[in-house]
Amino acid sequence: MSSSAHDIEEGLAFTPKFDADGLITAVATDARSGDVLMVAHMNDEALRKTIASGDAWYYSRSRKALWKKGETSGHVQRVLELRVDCDQDALWLKVEQQGAGACHTGRRSCFYRAVTLGQGAAARLEFRDAEKAFDPGKVYK
Amino acid sequence: MSSSAHDIEEGLAFTPKFDADGLITAVATDARSGDVLMVAHMNDEALRKTIASGDAWYYSRSRKALWKKGETSGHVQRVLELRVDCDQDALWLKVEQQGAGACHTGRRSCFYRAVTLGQGAAARLEFRDAEKAFDPGKVYK
Repeated sequence: MSSSAHDIEEGLAFTPKFDADGLITAVATDARSGDVLMVAHMNDEALRKTIASGDAWYYSRSRKALWKKGETSGHVQRVLELRVDCDQDALWLKVEQQGAGACHTGRRSCFYRAVTLGQGAAARLEFRDAEKAFDPGKVYK
Repeated sequence: MSSSAHDIEEGLAFTPKFDADGLITAVATDARSGDVLMVAHMNDEALRKTIASGDAWYYSRSRKALWKKGETSGHVQRVLELRVDCDQDALWLKVEQQGAGACHTGRRSCFYRAVTLGQGAAARLEFRDAEKAFDPGKVYK
């Protein structure tokens, strides 16, 4: 292992590795239940704002814009802990999800469907924890 | 919302959205503790093998190769549940981690360092749950 790889993996300097688009993957889990709420991306500015404020900021690839989670919906994510992985190219946010949910479809988590295992090419989905926690039509006006 | 976006979000057809490199982000959590073990990527073949076998397969961007998690180390991940998110561009695997750990550095999770919040540009890391669970020098010969 090169000295640099050793520093990245075993050191205490935070050197996040952004991809070619300047983004890093961020996984938000519910600090209480451990459920994955969402997978999103941060650019350097979103990461800095998250660290400075303790609220989760992301970068939307579709809208090409910085966004504070919950800015419109009020469903802010308070970051209780922010971790980085071994090669510093992924982030894990343990959050206190404010409001009813994290997903724009109205669910608490974006992961409300499971893939049937053991199937071949025709894998199907089934709903899991898919109850609507809020009415997105009312929240996103 | 277009009909197609509605189908992707509310339908039960599994239509994973691979990125320009043919990859989809996969987050593996420990089914027992809820901790995020690792963030990795799958290509279509890795995903098919995962669904068919119930063991986690990934695609290594650095090695440009398909790999069965635990192939060398024996630290296989049995997939208890596989979920997809609202826009079908991220996967969440709840796994039963076999062996001592998921991280090639010897830790149970790849996320063994936390970023100090409330700091400015000079954010630092501190170790969390960073005890070595196995000796990588012995496991990866």
